[in-house]
Amino acid sequence: MDNEKKLVEQITPMDVDFAQWYTDIVKKAELIDYSSVRGCMIIRPYAYAMWENIQKDLDKRFKELGHENVYMPMFIPESLLQKEKDHVEGFAPEVAWVTQGGNEELTERLCVRPTSETLFCEHYAKVVQSYKDLPKLYNQWCSVVRWEKTTRPFLRTTEFLWQEGHTIHATKEEAEAETIQMLNVYADHAEQMLAMPVVRGQKTEKEKFAGAEATYTIEALMHDGKALQAGTSHYFGTNFAEAFGIQFSDKDGKLKHVHQTSWGFTTRSIGAIIMVHGDDNGLKMPPRIAPIQVVITPVAQHKEGVLDKARELKERISKIARVKLDDSDKMPGWKFAEYEMKGVPVRLEIGPKDIEKNQVVLVRRDTREKIVVSMDELETKIPALLDDIHNSMLEAAKAVRELKTSVAKTMDEFKDIVENKTGFVKAMWCGDRDCEDKIKEETGATSRCMPFAQENLSDTCVCCGKKAKHMVYWGRAY
Amino acid sequence: MDNEKKLVEQITPMDVDFAQWYTDIVKKAELIDYSSVRGCMIIRPYAYAMWENIQKDLDKRFKELGHENVYMPMFIPESLLQKEKDHVEGFAPEVAWVTQGGNEELTERLCVRPTSETLFCEHYAKVVQSYKDLPKLYNQWCSVVRWEKTTRPFLRTTEFLWQEGHTIHATKEEAEAETIQMLNVYADHAEQMLAMPVVRGQKTEKEKFAGAEATYTIEALMHDGKALQAGTSHYFGTNFAEAFGIQFSDKDGKLKHVHQTSWGFTTRSIGAIIMVHGDDNGLKMPPRIAPIQVVITPVAQHKEGVLDKARELKERISKIARVKLDDSDKMPGWKFAEYEMKGVPVRLEIGPKDIEKNQVVLVRRDTREKIVVSMDELETKIPALLDDIHNSMLEAAKAVRELKTSVAKTMDEFKDIVENKTGFVKAMWCGDRDCEDKIKEETGATSRCMPFAQENLSDTCVCCGKKAKHMVYWGRAY
Repeated sequence: MDNEKKLVEQITPMDVDFAQWYTDIVKKAELIDYSSVRGCMIIRPYAYAMWENIQKDLDKRFKELGHENVYMPMFIPESLLQKEKDHVEGFAPEVAWVTQGGNEELTERLCVRPTSETLFCEHYAKVVQSYKDLPKLYNQWCSVVRWEKTTRPFLRTTEFLWQEGHTIHATKEEAEAETIQMLNVYADHAEQMLAMPVVRGQKTEKEKFAGAEATYTIEALMHDGKALQAGTSHYFGTNFAEAFGIQFSDKDGKLKHVHQTSWGFTTRSIGAIIMVHGDDNGLKMPPRIAPIQVVITPVAQHKEGVLDKARELKERISKIARVKLDDSDKMPGWKFAEYEMKGVPVRLEIGPKDIEKNQVVLVRRDTREKIVVSMDELETKIPALLDDIHNSMLEAAKAVRELKTSVAKTMDEFKDIVENKTGFVKAMWCGDRDCEDKIKEETGATSRCMPFAQENLSDTCVCCGKKAKHMVYWGRAY
Repeated sequence: MDNEKKLVEQITPMDVDFAQWYTDIVKKAELIDYSSVRGCMIIRPYAYAMWENIQKDLDKRFKELGHENVYMPMFIPESLLQKEKDHVEGFAPEVAWVTQGGNEELTERLCVRPTSETLFCEHYAKVVQSYKDLPKLYNQWCSVVRWEKTTRPFLRTTEFLWQEGHTIHATKEEAEAETIQMLNVYADHAEQMLAMPVVRGQKTEKEKFAGAEATYTIEALMHDGKALQAGTSHYFGTNFAEAFGIQFSDKDGKLKHVHQTSWGFTTRSIGAIIMVHGDDNGLKMPPRIAPIQVVITPVAQHKEGVLDKARELKERISKIARVKLDDSDKMPGWKFAEYEMKGVPVRLEIGPKDIEKNQVVLVRRDTREKIVVSMDELETKIPALLDDIHNSMLEAAKAVRELKTSVAKTMDEFKDIVENKTGFVKAMWCGDRDCEDKIKEETGATSRCMPFAQENLSDTCVCCGKKAKHMVYWGRAY
């Protein structure tokens, strides 16, 4: 147990220093390694396997809705980036510039894509002629670069992995429906795969994406009471289509501009998973994306028959779950601590006594509950247990969010919540940018979203007292 | 049939101008689009779906052999690139340099990765301590950039997609076995998935990878008689380990350097597929990676019952193959030409008469043979037909390669083959760089590989007449 203690002691408790707790987990659970490349991180196998499971689920959802994958160049010539005015203003200050290729000085700088609207637009302008060519529902899996001043693993890095969907449509209605549909895909994925409850809503004018008419978002709440934007979906209207000349001849014979959307989901989600579910013993992996769902740790594995039985169980369980057998010569206590740190949802213990009784012990990572199960029932009990863990984790996260969601009717209440209770603040807003700015200045909280599920908390803006237009979720955010 | 003719006439016959034939296909089959980014291409949905099928098969093979996926940064600081002398000499002249981030001038240039040995090495040096940490079997799917002067879609582009495996081992024997194992994975994938026969062998000193002890390759032969390197696997010995200080304490307590490999397979393979299988009507997709394996083209689809039956068949076939129903109002002849261009392995025709007879007509893309099949037998006939097409395409490609593989015993024979017959030249070589250089100078052919299957064609070098050491495949190459 000395080893177990040692491993656990190396994590800073989250109440002592949340930021350090987070950093400890990403290192000790072997999710990332720092590199000599400023602001970039190495995604190690355990974290990359999470990302692959996330990708697999999202990609399947996208394709079932008719989307196709493509690959666009990673470079954008400066002149192309500049075609849409708001867009370039939003991104130009934070891009990396390639100025030399081989030994030649480039005549035009190329930026490393921070996002690919401009490239998709240039392509769409060439391949779309008629309403018969619409809609185009494209998606791309890639990495993008934004030159960040301060970085944190997964949450804010110079380079990160994501998918970016870019679609064009004949009508405003279709494009708006697509924007909302994809936001719902993200929300459903977050809840059904990541066990992470999210608030669905629309960003304010101030917080929307550079070049968009409307930005929709899913917002999650972390253990420390800070909000995290976990996915966004944008409606562009014809802004880009006009800048790039993406036109089609419609059924009525008239030449029209397409209506456009884009939507993205990133490796930030891994940071959110850590901060929504983790505890002072380490990660808690949502079972449906856990790289290892069940780890078998034999007890007294040197005794005859124990390892053989463990291998037999591994073979059986591999047909129903992602399973690992740890038959290394590490002490059991050390193994327990390691897989708690890595958040493996179920630990299966098997020793000579269990074999005698034809049973195994299943230990839940989320509640640490131990369950004795007959060896004959593994094929039904394990999938049911994984589902139960998923549901419990989702409910637990919802409960934390409820506890940390408060209503503010005055600025004093607002400040008090942000300072002392933390979490989401629900408050009415008049819709004026001045009030939004003032709230940020006085409390440090930004508007997270105007939720689709509006409530009438009061008739007046929490800031200026004028007539309220929207109920808004506010909070300090990652 | 006017439309069909028009579509087909737009492809330049390969005998008239092979390069133009290739360019016509990549455009007309909607594989790529050019972009305003110099030397970069847009991989359109149809080609990207090929790549996804290639990825899926390779990734499965890698994982079955114990490899894990990771993600390394896309930037390499100049000082890191310079750590291994041969490596930097090989790559520095052809990389893209980032010199500005946001508004700041960087103090150290970053190159966009042309390959990631240096990043993997830096990471391995940190995470490996003991023989218990070995082997590390890592792989990465990403894009890389090499600043090319002249580019061609898939074959040579400034940016391309690939996977790069990087492994480290405790012993030379293990690392060498890994190098050969992964080359065989590529060869098996090429033959079993792409229907593309390849020659397996070792590169000469002149042609090996920058920094490697030994480079192994699979070489394929294109329709025009030029060779194409379709995958490589490198053994590095301890070259990088020494430069980066990757050491481990072995079982005997001694500190040792790891033995290292890397291996890569790229989107070039799509260019190879086009040039190994295509004809003057367009692409021929190898069935096992074809995005669409069966296309249903209804005949007289306005007649009652035809479209209903076509939809019913689509539903059934979707359980055994990747199927598309084209119920657009294009003329049948136009559809035929379009799917020939796109190389869909099987076209299924169904019209009122077929329905009456409870049959469908299956048309093979590779031989244009028509087969009448009972509707009751689709579930067995279609998979069998796809396998048969795969085998026929592989055999046809082998036959072409045999026809275009010649033995040269004198330099005159050598020149004659390269000039007039084209294809692979098998010839003995003394092992001296001077002869290799002279052969290239006089014939334009480079050494493709020293095949594992050596033959003793004669006792003397084709160039200098001294004692021969190796039988070599030579050829002009992409």
